[in-house]
Amino acid sequence: MALAAGARVQARALLRPWSRVPSAAPGRTPAAGGGGPGARCFGSPRVLVEPDPAAGVAVMKLRKPPVNSLSLELLTELVISLEKLENDKSFQGVIITSDSPGIFSAGLDLMEMCGRDPAHYAEYWKAMQELWLRLYLSHLVLICAVNGVSPAGGCLLALSCDYRILADNPKYTIGLNETQLGIVAPFWFADTLVNTIGHRAAERALQLGLLFPPAEALQVGIVDQVVPEDQVQSTARSVMAQWLAVPDHARQLTKNLMRKATADRLLKQRDADIQNFVSFISRDSIQKSLHVYIEKLQKKKG
Amino acid sequence: MALAAGARVQARALLRPWSRVPSAAPGRTPAAGGGGPGARCFGSPRVLVEPDPAAGVAVMKLRKPPVNSLSLELLTELVISLEKLENDKSFQGVIITSDSPGIFSAGLDLMEMCGRDPAHYAEYWKAMQELWLRLYLSHLVLICAVNGVSPAGGCLLALSCDYRILADNPKYTIGLNETQLGIVAPFWFADTLVNTIGHRAAERALQLGLLFPPAEALQVGIVDQVVPEDQVQSTARSVMAQWLAVPDHARQLTKNLMRKATADRLLKQRDADIQNFVSFISRDSIQKSLHVYIEKLQKKKG
Amino acid sequence: MALAAGARVQARALLRPWSRVPSAAPGRTPAAGGGGPGARCFGSPRVLVEPDPAAGVAVMKLRKPPVNSLSLELLTELVISLEKLENDKSFQGVIITSDSPGIFSAGLDLMEMCGRDPAHYAEYWKAMQELWLRLYLSHLVLICAVNGVSPAGGCLLALSCDYRILADNPKYTIGLNETQLGIVAPFWFADTLVNTIGHRAAERALQLGLLFPPAEALQVGIVDQVVPEDQVQSTARSVMAQWLAVPDHARQLTKNLMRKATADRLLKQRDADIQNFVSFISRDSIQKSLHVYIEKLQKKKG
Repeated sequence: MALAAGARVQARALLRPWSRVPSAAPGRTPAAGGGGPGARCFGSPRVLVEPDPAAGVAVMKLRKPPVNSLSLELLTELVISLEKLENDKSFQGVIITSDSPGIFSAGLDLMEMCGRDPAHYAEYWKAMQELWLRLYLSHLVLICAVNGVSPAGGCLLALSCDYRILADNPKYTIGLNETQLGIVAPFWFADTLVNTIGHRAAERALQLGLLFPPAEALQVGIVDQVVPEDQVQSTARSVMAQWLAVPDHARQLTKNLMRKATADRLLKQRDADIQNFVSFISRDSIQKSLHVYIEKLQKKKG
Repeated sequence: MALAAGARVQARALLRPWSRVPSAAPGRTPAAGGGGPGARCFGSPRVLVEPDPAAGVAVMKLRKPPVNSLSLELLTELVISLEKLENDKSFQGVIITSDSPGIFSAGLDLMEMCGRDPAHYAEYWKAMQELWLRLYLSHLVLICAVNGVSPAGGCLLALSCDYRILADNPKYTIGLNETQLGIVAPFWFADTLVNTIGHRAAERALQLGLLFPPAEALQVGIVDQVVPEDQVQSTARSVMAQWLAVPDHARQLTKNLMRKATADRLLKQRDADIQNFVSFISRDSIQKSLHVYIEKLQKKKG
Repeated sequence: MALAAGARVQARALLRPWSRVPSAAPGRTPAAGGGGPGARCFGSPRVLVEPDPAAGVAVMKLRKPPVNSLSLELLTELVISLEKLENDKSFQGVIITSDSPGIFSAGLDLMEMCGRDPAHYAEYWKAMQELWLRLYLSHLVLICAVNGVSPAGGCLLALSCDYRILADNPKYTIGLNETQLGIVAPFWFADTLVNTIGHRAAERALQLGLLFPPAEALQVGIVDQVVPEDQVQSTARSVMAQWLAVPDHARQLTKNLMRKATADRLLKQRDADIQNFVSFISRDSIQKSLHVYIEKLQKKKG
């Protein structure tokens, strides 16, 4: 597949900060990852990877406090982590979750979209496309353990997996709420939502920028399961076991059969989509809105 | 957009009968419409428009007794009213409803399709296409307050809006029941239904020509909400307020993103679709069926 | 339509074994079929046809014990039976069911796919395509009375009909479970499932190779109705009456409108699809898997 040669080069340039990091799960015996006799946590500064090669599974945790916003660095590290796991035959499945329960991911990083030059916007958007393409077509089984609020790009991350489990907390809403911020979800965000909840529900959710609390999220089908907060990770493990019981090659081909046309729509107009994003985000009116919004967020924190 | 130059010319020719008319809502203070300090009802003979510029909303009422059949004149006046509201920046939303509770609209006007010449059929069908294209892609928020029975073309009108509220009366059925009359819903009617209730439900409903009573209509998703009959208009108002709270430009672009491909399918083969309609409706067998059906209806009335 | 000239020739070559056979329904008065004054059962060795020309309906029963696997002969006889009923104006509808309650159909016949030469695989696959195209676009109303387990190709048969009634027996599961056997459902199997249960449910069901027991089958929409086992045939009759009450020509055109694009996808790449099948099934690894699987099945029986 001709995915993002550019982003890959960039990813490699980032390999230097890549390093093994101590496991966040105390009491768990760390061992050598990547097909070795045991598993040691590894990852990059913003993505913690806890491998369990015996099970063929790794847990990938977003770790960019405070809200796991999808900065260029986080996007790139996510692509690298995923690529690394895909190239390691020890792994058939990945559980994606947040290292900061309460926030799965706040979505696109407004700081990457405000006050920068067009070349930066283009690089940023290409990285966003790359992550989606990688996730959506990954031959790995991807289970999303949504352990926190998940708007916009955070929701897209979840939608790009094979199965979504949401913690049953009324604060943990999920949805593509771009219109509420005065922006428009790109067509491939919309396609991914339509493929998940159907055309009508997607049309309404996208126009209104709806964020669904757990019960509604389950009903509309934006997540597959809602479980008590302390059971999200264990449920993800059992669901993963069910998916890994399927002959892997047949499952991979079937996934590709179901998703290729949607991914191809972006691949065929990838540069145009980048140009659209750059010219949209560069508009004075949008820059002003983002600026106001960021200031509001910063006051809220302060 | 290159919509219906022909129908527009015709619409302008009809502008002469256009006139301010007394409001049908007694007790409401009439005031100047169109962005002025207040609102006065206006409209055309068959379409009553009650503007509320303070709220950014107008109510558009079909007024072609006894059954609001979509005659060429009604279609043209609907297009003109909509165009007028779209060009007036005071309005962001329109509630479409019937001035004759009990009948939302009986759909296509059989009198326009029976015993006329091909040029008339072509003109009529072009006007029908034009209304659908206008409604389906309108940048205004369109809420349909379905306060009566709504078969065939009446149902299409409702499906072309952004949200549908049906009065909870078992007589108020809604659906594309063309096959029951021995005719076939055109592909863009079918597309609109598929986009609303999905492929399988649409396939079954279209083949059987199903008319759904309120509970079933809600379950299959052909309407979004069912409320007691006396709450249809007030519910439409509150739903409208929810939709108008979304930043308007982002919502408009999102609506276009979701609907453009479906509208383009018709735009790309608009003339062929007209030719299909003309040759289908001109068939002796169809003319005979329509004739018999019209006589039956007239006896029923008499 | 330019369907399967090849398969037709072959079908004609099989016409010799075609013969009237005694009815399997004792107590029912056999009479002359095909529009005659009454109805006599007819059919071919593997397809029993019980005509009821007075009702305009025939019941077509799969009769290839023990599991109604879709051998080349069964596929060909099904196509011939269907063609015969389509060409006989006495019939507007067909109820498809199994002559061996407990098994609707086990799907593709592994014996046709194992240890044969490429020419045979190609012939077999063309016959499978032909059956699907015939069923999916049939102008007859097809009601499927699913009176037994219905995996893979058996499920496809059911999905290609207009309405599916499943006997309420927890053993009677239905689904496209190809991945569980290490193979991949072809794109037109997937398209048919997507058209029935939507993209998301199809994606999950296909990846996991899910077989749905009755309650789940109804909920996901892979069948339209679940009834007690002894009411499957009578329910099929009443549902058929509802469908036959619709003006036939309008219903046929509407069915074609809804299904043509999906059928065309296969027609446009029919040869490529055959080549894909032949090269996939000819692989050593697949041949070995099938061999092991067949041996396991045979031991199970013995």
